[in-house]
Amino acid sequence: MGNKEKKLAVLGSTGSVGQQTLQVVRALSHRFQIVGLAAGKNLDLLTKQISEFKPRFVYYQATEAEARLANAKYELLSLEDIASHPEVDTVVIATSGKSGLLATLAAARAGKNIALANKESLVMAGEIITNEAKLNGAQILPIDSEHSAIWQCLTGETQPASQLILTASGGPFRHYSPAQLDGVTSKQALKHPSWQMGKKVTIDSATLMNKGLEVIEARWLFNMPFDSIRVIIHPQSIIHSMVEFVDGSIKAQLGYPDMRLPIQYALSYPERLPNPELPRLDWNNIKELTFEQPDFDRFPCLRLAIEAGRKGGTNPAVLCAADEVAVELFLSQAIKFTDIAHLAKRALEEHEAIVQPTLKEIIAADGWARERVLKLARRGNP
Amino acid sequence: MGNKEKKLAVLGSTGSVGQQTLQVVRALSHRFQIVGLAAGKNLDLLTKQISEFKPRFVYYQATEAEARLANAKYELLSLEDIASHPEVDTVVIATSGKSGLLATLAAARAGKNIALANKESLVMAGEIITNEAKLNGAQILPIDSEHSAIWQCLTGETQPASQLILTASGGPFRHYSPAQLDGVTSKQALKHPSWQMGKKVTIDSATLMNKGLEVIEARWLFNMPFDSIRVIIHPQSIIHSMVEFVDGSIKAQLGYPDMRLPIQYALSYPERLPNPELPRLDWNNIKELTFEQPDFDRFPCLRLAIEAGRKGGTNPAVLCAADEVAVELFLSQAIKFTDIAHLAKRALEEHEAIVQPTLKEIIAADGWARERVLKLARRGNP
Repeated sequence: MGNKEKKLAVLGSTGSVGQQTLQVVRALSHRFQIVGLAAGKNLDLLTKQISEFKPRFVYYQATEAEARLANAKYELLSLEDIASHPEVDTVVIATSGKSGLLATLAAARAGKNIALANKESLVMAGEIITNEAKLNGAQILPIDSEHSAIWQCLTGETQPASQLILTASGGPFRHYSPAQLDGVTSKQALKHPSWQMGKKVTIDSATLMNKGLEVIEARWLFNMPFDSIRVIIHPQSIIHSMVEFVDGSIKAQLGYPDMRLPIQYALSYPERLPNPELPRLDWNNIKELTFEQPDFDRFPCLRLAIEAGRKGGTNPAVLCAADEVAVELFLSQAIKFTDIAHLAKRALEEHEAIVQPTLKEIIAADGWARERVLKLARRGNP
Repeated sequence: MGNKEKKLAVLGSTGSVGQQTLQVVRALSHRFQIVGLAAGKNLDLLTKQISEFKPRFVYYQATEAEARLANAKYELLSLEDIASHPEVDTVVIATSGKSGLLATLAAARAGKNIALANKESLVMAGEIITNEAKLNGAQILPIDSEHSAIWQCLTGETQPASQLILTASGGPFRHYSPAQLDGVTSKQALKHPSWQMGKKVTIDSATLMNKGLEVIEARWLFNMPFDSIRVIIHPQSIIHSMVEFVDGSIKAQLGYPDMRLPIQYALSYPERLPNPELPRLDWNNIKELTFEQPDFDRFPCLRLAIEAGRKGGTNPAVLCAADEVAVELFLSQAIKFTDIAHLAKRALEEHEAIVQPTLKEIIAADGWARERVLKLARRGNP
């Protein structure tokens, strides 16, 4: 099987999705080979990963680390160079925030298979990235559980969907009153009821911003108008999303909340591989799946995101950046939970959007929004 | 679009599935043309259908009717001749009971697309029919909602499923005690909680015999071992069935209980056609989907059927025939609801099964079981 191994680069290998990607590779080592690893500042873990997987290309952020890692036998490359390297078949973009954007673009231009967990790339620059991917024969393989579900449901269908139905757990506060939401602490918000994820996405799940960003992502991944993308709350997180077809038939994808399944599907597609480590739904213990409508008033981030997506241009980039900064401020206890939405809203209101922006303009809008949110928060005026 | 019309023959056009097939054809008349109609004894309705759809070939059972229908311009053919006629693209086998078996076989031998609602064909002679279909390039397109769901979920997958999960409404008596089940009347049993269907299949749904027959049908349609086919009770009948794949991912197909969707999918496959008459799930009103394990003790027909399927040979044919007669006896108030299972069990116990039977042997076993059940019932000794 040696020559059938897929060669993978994992960008963001020390984060939550990155680590789970390496778990999948470990379980299916006869099918996948790690040729590139890239991480930010968690050099202890990266060092361990390097010695286990022996990648040929490595990227890391901190300079003081070079000495520590110098003994290893690999080439130091930039994120973009790893993402576009001829020896790489599939690039896993598992960085969070905007850091994966340029790498995603490089991979798209190099015609790679892009296993994409970084939703900010498509939110900020969906049009540019999907155009480059189409132009260069790159395939974007979603790793988000919702988009993976939709992708799995679309497999083999000869016609476009008529509606995408994204499910959302609703987060830990879905029945909180506005006053209760005001008092939510970061400790509370970091306890997600069903998913184990990184901090940023866990907070985004609690505000429903995450679901809003996923709506924008779905718009680009599946070329669907916003009017045909719907969100429903499904607290058990067993149905990961659904697709409605022109005849009214709906297909859904189900499983326990475990990122390793969508990760593995993106890596093994179009095949599915048996992996005894992946959990199987135990129907003896599944008594009910429930559904609710999202409350756009108590969770304004969902509406903000969909509106920013509809307006397009630089608006989604501003939303993304404002949210990233606001979530950091919330985690450091500088602002309240409900201020995340207030700050994102203010940034969007004050932003002078550019239609059909260049990448440079998108990055400038991102920079502007970060500064703006910091200033608004510093003034104590979200 | 005229030359893109699919030419259909509908066998059993006056029954429940037959009538719903004609509703679909009426709504999508630019895509489908009726060239053959066949019915049993409901000549009033058949006459109306003939004058509306103007088929070229007709079959009907009663002779006294010939005069009445003589003015119409069509050829009188046998069921088998219609099913295998060169001008027919797709044969809809919508007869219930064993009457569709020979027609299904004729269609399989003629390499037709077979839209199959008659589950007895595959239960009685699954091996023979699927072999003939494979040999002659015929495609069996399931019309049962459960098998259509599985088929839709398998579309585009490159590997076999690891498990088929058939859902069952559980019927109107799923929480009845054994004593309550003993007293069930035919009037009660004919009120199905979620599906509108013919009488035979409605009673079979109440005993869960229907689900057992569907397990056998699934075994042949999807070439799956019985150990990989599971039944779960899902009273809302929204999830029509599910498929689990080797990686643990599950796909499900959802919709309101309405036979027109699986009928249309079988007719339009691989396309899906927009049809405003088909209902769409209203997520504002779907609050929960629930699941229970089937009770094989209170509903012994389910176990009987699966056991008969596992044993194979002429056993499934005996089960089918015994059930058909027992259901008729129950509907005419000659036996109790729980006697249906008793009679089927007795017939299977007394039957000397033949392994790898010929069609003749299958039909002989069917005849034997019918007589045997009538005798047992007449003796008042089920």
